[in-house]
Amino acid sequence: MEVIDILKKYSTIVDEEIDKSLNTVDPEKLQKASEHLIKAGGKKIRPALVILTCQAVGGNVEEALKTAAAVELIHTFSLIHDDIMDEDNMRRGKPSVHVLWGEPMAILAGDTLFSKAFETILETRIDGVSYERVVGTLKTVVDSCTKICEGQAFDMCFEGNFDVAEEEYMQMIYMKTGALIAAATKSGAIVGGGSPEQVEALAEYGRLIGLAFQIQDDYLDVVSDEQDIGKPVGSDVVEGKMTLMVVNALSKASPEDKTELISILNAKSDTNVARAIELFEKYDSINYTHNISLQNVERAKKLLDVVDDSPAKEALLKMADFMLERNH
Amino acid sequence: MEVIDILKKYSTIVDEEIDKSLNTVDPEKLQKASEHLIKAGGKKIRPALVILTCQAVGGNVEEALKTAAAVELIHTFSLIHDDIMDEDNMRRGKPSVHVLWGEPMAILAGDTLFSKAFETILETRIDGVSYERVVGTLKTVVDSCTKICEGQAFDMCFEGNFDVAEEEYMQMIYMKTGALIAAATKSGAIVGGGSPEQVEALAEYGRLIGLAFQIQDDYLDVVSDEQDIGKPVGSDVVEGKMTLMVVNALSKASPEDKTELISILNAKSDTNVARAIELFEKYDSINYTHNISLQNVERAKKLLDVVDDSPAKEALLKMADFMLERNH
Repeated sequence: MEVIDILKKYSTIVDEEIDKSLNTVDPEKLQKASEHLIKAGGKKIRPALVILTCQAVGGNVEEALKTAAAVELIHTFSLIHDDIMDEDNMRRGKPSVHVLWGEPMAILAGDTLFSKAFETILETRIDGVSYERVVGTLKTVVDSCTKICEGQAFDMCFEGNFDVAEEEYMQMIYMKTGALIAAATKSGAIVGGGSPEQVEALAEYGRLIGLAFQIQDDYLDVVSDEQDIGKPVGSDVVEGKMTLMVVNALSKASPEDKTELISILNAKSDTNVARAIELFEKYDSINYTHNISLQNVERAKKLLDVVDDSPAKEALLKMADFMLERNH
Repeated sequence: MEVIDILKKYSTIVDEEIDKSLNTVDPEKLQKASEHLIKAGGKKIRPALVILTCQAVGGNVEEALKTAAAVELIHTFSLIHDDIMDEDNMRRGKPSVHVLWGEPMAILAGDTLFSKAFETILETRIDGVSYERVVGTLKTVVDSCTKICEGQAFDMCFEGNFDVAEEEYMQMIYMKTGALIAAATKSGAIVGGGSPEQVEALAEYGRLIGLAFQIQDDYLDVVSDEQDIGKPVGSDVVEGKMTLMVVNALSKASPEDKTELISILNAKSDTNVARAIELFEKYDSINYTHNISLQNVERAKKLLDVVDDSPAKEALLKMADFMLERNH
């Protein structure tokens, strides 16, 4: 089965579970604001990873379903609040929640999803053994929530400051993007009853593919055709966004090139995109970035040795490769 | 021991526990924004209630401490987000978090406290028995978080609309204020190992004193001297705030008086405060409101029969009366 079909298959049952969580929200305005972004689409990669890792360690879909829904609720909460903070007015081709309902209701919608995520995990049918698993799942998900907040704060603090070490940059994108994906794969392994070794390996698998996903997204922005990625090539440069390519090029560049690249990024205009890409090429930062995402995916796949062969393992191998593809 | 001394006594140990939860938050700017309101004061009524209810069912302070800290973290999270939504620029005599750090960092600070609250509960030392108690505590606290969001949304939806039934109004203030106080007393009873009967009675005790607290606050706004409450008499009328007094008067008033009262509230000016109070008196709404808070406190105290006599029970009886006092 292709990744896109796996995602579709689980998307339907996860959506049903999310509906169950949100259909009691009152008043109606808060409910609509909370549901909007989930109903606007999204590929539901994170819940699919919860279900697949649960199955890969011998668990079944039912055990993973509430956690899968919860992880998507957390993801959506963070998107709604990020859009307010970053003043992004469109998401998934639709106006953002704060554009449609105003900032106060959008803040509340995010808070509600955050709360409902934990409520949903806590609704997991509990027997003696499962108490421990539910607490383990909650710890994993809560820990990633704190990291998401910290990562967003680091991102905001870094803004306009290009004097950031690669290690700091990688830590920031891990917190912003990797941590929740790692929480998805780790909590899937926990609810499925994986051994401590399996839980750790699958957490690391999630961390690595999460980083690859983010890094590859920045790489594709520079090397793709406009029609492939649905936005102009080099749009990150136009936005002055810090990416691994930028951090890497700045760390190697001559003082003149460094000054030029920073001034191109600060200008936030499309006139010097080609020159910025030339500088990335000069310092081999495009290849460097691409290699890091490739390596992360290969290391992630290797970690799957910790589980026996199964359709779920096959799917997880494909999911890792999927992170490198266009059009996410 | 007087209530104010009980609060002081527990405030110190709760502050230490909160410090432990927040001192790892990174970057520093996020940490400062998250800590600001907690360090700005507040009487820590909710954590004291967690500790006292835990002790009242035979538990000890140590068992309750993390949950006590968590409840205060949730309370602070909701104040920070509410201040953004309501555009309140001062809180506890200091500029609000969004005034000092900007809205994006204030949203994140609230989210971080929300996350840290659950992290803190999950750090409760766990043995076989406690897994069940930790999950019970989490359910109680999460449920109140959803209610806080819903209550704030109802409050926003009610704004400018005075056609609200008393039942709807009471439900809204229960969600906004009562639910977290009920979660404090319920979770204290759970972590302390109370019987199901004790847990339910103490939850109801919390709900009743929480409602009394909110209703009495609105009552005192009208009947106090300016120097007693530290703000002009009738300031709720000037703000056009919906209170139980308003809801009650409107439900009984003649069409003419109803129109007049609504126009006074919508004017948001201090010229007709005396006339509004005259109308509250005409329909006996001031006494009505006062009686409801008195009744709630008496019913709450009666519910404490469910626990044996102890210093903690004495303190809980005093805490109920404390809700009726000025200068909170």
